Amino acid sequence: MNLLIKDVALLPMDGENGIVNGTNIYIKGNRIAHIGEVREDIKVDRVIDGSKKLAMPGLINAHTHIGMSLFRNYADDLPLHDWLTKKIWPLEAKLTAEDVYWGSLLSMVEMIQSGTTTFCDMYFFMEKVGEGLIESGMRGVIARGIIEEKGLEKGKIDYSRKLYDEWNGKGEGRIKVIVAPHAPYTCSPGYLKELLELAMELNTPIHIHLSETRKEVEDSLNLYGKSPIRHAYDLGLFKQPTIAAHCVHVDEEDIRILKDNNVSPVYNPSSNLKLASGFAPVDRMLKEDINVALGTDGSSSNNNLNMFEEIHIASIVNKAVNMDAISVKAMDALKMATINGARALKWDDEIGSIEVNKKADIILIDLDKPHLYPLHNLVSLLAYSVQGSDVDTVIIDGNIVMENREIKTLDVEKIMYNAQKLSEELILR
Amino acid sequence: MNLLIKDVALLPMDGENGIVNGTNIYIKGNRIAHIGEVREDIKVDRVIDGSKKLAMPGLINAHTHIGMSLFRNYADDLPLHDWLTKKIWPLEAKLTAEDVYWGSLLSMVEMIQSGTTTFCDMYFFMEKVGEGLIESGMRGVIARGIIEEKGLEKGKIDYSRKLYDEWNGKGEGRIKVIVAPHAPYTCSPGYLKELLELAMELNTPIHIHLSETRKEVEDSLNLYGKSPIRHAYDLGLFKQPTIAAHCVHVDEEDIRILKDNNVSPVYNPSSNLKLASGFAPVDRMLKEDINVALGTDGSSSNNNLNMFEEIHIASIVNKAVNMDAISVKAMDALKMATINGARALKWDDEIGSIEVNKKADIILIDLDKPHLYPLHNLVSLLAYSVQGSDVDTVIIDGNIVMENREIKTLDVEKIMYNAQKLSEELILR
Repeated sequence: MNLLIKDVALLPMDGENGIVNGTNIYIKGNRIAHIGEVREDIKVDRVIDGSKKLAMPGLINAHTHIGMSLFRNYADDLPLHDWLTKKIWPLEAKLTAEDVYWGSLLSMVEMIQSGTTTFCDMYFFMEKVGEGLIESGMRGVIARGIIEEKGLEKGKIDYSRKLYDEWNGKGEGRIKVIVAPHAPYTCSPGYLKELLELAMELNTPIHIHLSETRKEVEDSLNLYGKSPIRHAYDLGLFKQPTIAAHCVHVDEEDIRILKDNNVSPVYNPSSNLKLASGFAPVDRMLKEDINVALGTDGSSSNNNLNMFEEIHIASIVNKAVNMDAISVKAMDALKMATINGARALKWDDEIGSIEVNKKADIILIDLDKPHLYPLHNLVSLLAYSVQGSDVDTVIIDGNIVMENREIKTLDVEKIMYNAQKLSEELILR
Repeated sequence: MNLLIKDVALLPMDGENGIVNGTNIYIKGNRIAHIGEVREDIKVDRVIDGSKKLAMPGLINAHTHIGMSLFRNYADDLPLHDWLTKKIWPLEAKLTAEDVYWGSLLSMVEMIQSGTTTFCDMYFFMEKVGEGLIESGMRGVIARGIIEEKGLEKGKIDYSRKLYDEWNGKGEGRIKVIVAPHAPYTCSPGYLKELLELAMELNTPIHIHLSETRKEVEDSLNLYGKSPIRHAYDLGLFKQPTIAAHCVHVDEEDIRILKDNNVSPVYNPSSNLKLASGFAPVDRMLKEDINVALGTDGSSSNNNLNMFEEIHIASIVNKAVNMDAISVKAMDALKMATINGARALKWDDEIGSIEVNKKADIILIDLDKPHLYPLHNLVSLLAYSVQGSDVDTVIIDGNIVMENREIKTLDVEKIMYNAQKLSEELILR
């Protein structure tokens, strides 16, 4: 199907242009065919009225665990250790493939409704996330999050290879499968090397948690005599493109290693705040031209998957941290949520900005809302005023996945019903 | 009119009960008449279906400048001094009564749509805010923000007295007028004393900015040899109940003064972050049983008036500041936004909680949303997951001001149109 988004304000995130008013975007099949004046020579099947709307690239949630939506608001205001050991881990131990399927679909509904078109997920029963991606029409980078367990080491590697063989490239190329060692504190050096070899064999990026908490860094210093980032570097992990979730507690050497190895840290502001992890030195990393991406983490530590909220918090909290009102500007936060996310996932040749020949992953923001008025600077508006609920239309891979806030691809009522039922059963299980 | 909200989940914020499921709330005229079982003996004109909804007290925005909505997203990512001197002050100097009228109405629309029923406003042309309060049906505490200006000292006092005489108690008691010296750095000690006398004469609370920025505290130490809070205390200001906006940079003596004098600090998390003011020691103040309220500040430093966003940020950012995952719990943040706000405004005899005989200021949250599912702990949900756009129905003083997100009292389209037009004219003026 060919689409025309007519007379729209566009924020292309192409590194060159700011807001372009009153332009037109032509989509042929799953790609952007033309941006600019109206073209009579391009046939279109559908015209979407873009007036009073703003088009921008679909948001990229670069670090999440979407199956965890079943635990949303189940356990909060607890010390981190109690939260994990008494609440989250016991539930996770009982999770079934069906739970992860419905929990993941619930998360996809939430992400679409708040403007996310691509996510990078690390969890388990990942074939169920693959099924959800096919159904929802979303784009996703999926990986089994691998924690070393005695006797299961080889099985988890085999599972990851099989996941890759069966799912990579599926959904007309909307699905990528990568390798995800959970963290240096849950995988031994030897096992991390095996997982690195798997990533090299499959030629995929690596997705891993690094330096999220102070304790994690202290433990690494005690055990290995070096920071988790230095440790991962010394093991050769960064030979593969690496998506490094969190990077909250990093020193100057860590920052240099991240920069020299083109590692993409993923900043998860809500989760870092809510779990009392701390403040990642985002401004410092951006000034080093490090490709910082943005994520929500799981919805049990957030407790939502709303990337506009992450953009907003990223753009204001760092100003106070640095006592500098121009630290992490609106555009910086928007880059983290779009083109930087695409770069982190090694997908910036196709997504992350609205440019001719890129895949058509486009969201339309409804500007005709009292809390956005009067309309002045639309870049400021996107970071400081827009709510996830202002997303009106979501196009992924050229398909209209949501229009007038109605999701076209999924049975939302059924998903909510099953998520509620399964989460209650899970607690009693 | 008598209303029944039937079969609703209730968070009364009465200091005793948590969530009460499947209850019924009867409203007679402007007061809450009964909470609990269905009563055949109470005649009702309208039944509101409360199933899949949560009732809680309307939110109280305890510090704002609502006329500033016209500057939303006009000037951001600037150093504080440039923002004020090059952008905000030049525009404010040109503001007319008509600008403030439409800007204030725009803010009222935004506040109603995100669940705020009462606000405490400090600005100018306040009779226009009074008119807006009459029309919108909102509840408000209004005051002219008084900056000392040569030759205008007496005029501003006379204006405030006249405002009180003409507007206090208007709108069936929904409007209160108080006295608002802008700050100790914009009013001399002598002038502050005159304004204190006015507040004593009218028997009103005082609304003032205190210790917002580090520079303000340093300047006060240089000029008076004491902090702004100590300075205000020594002048006798706290003899009147005081609403002290910000209190970001406070030391132990300041905290003791606030506590001993029952001063209510108003925490404005978004504004404090965005303007790089810093992190108010909210957890510390709450532990001292200081009545911390919550506010948005103006929408040019936020850039919205969404109290659910403030609740959310208040409940997560302090955890990271204190490196303590149980700092400022969900319920703490909800208290700040409801009953503490009522106490700060000396209005807790009538609003701030849902209790029999209190005024009926009630909001209904639509729980039937994917990003709130599965439903587990509804207190967690309100702080960590709810968006302002989940507010479905707003009742103020027993009147349905919004239902199914449709505002009943104001012409929203006309307000948006005029706000846009006037803000553009203002910039060119």
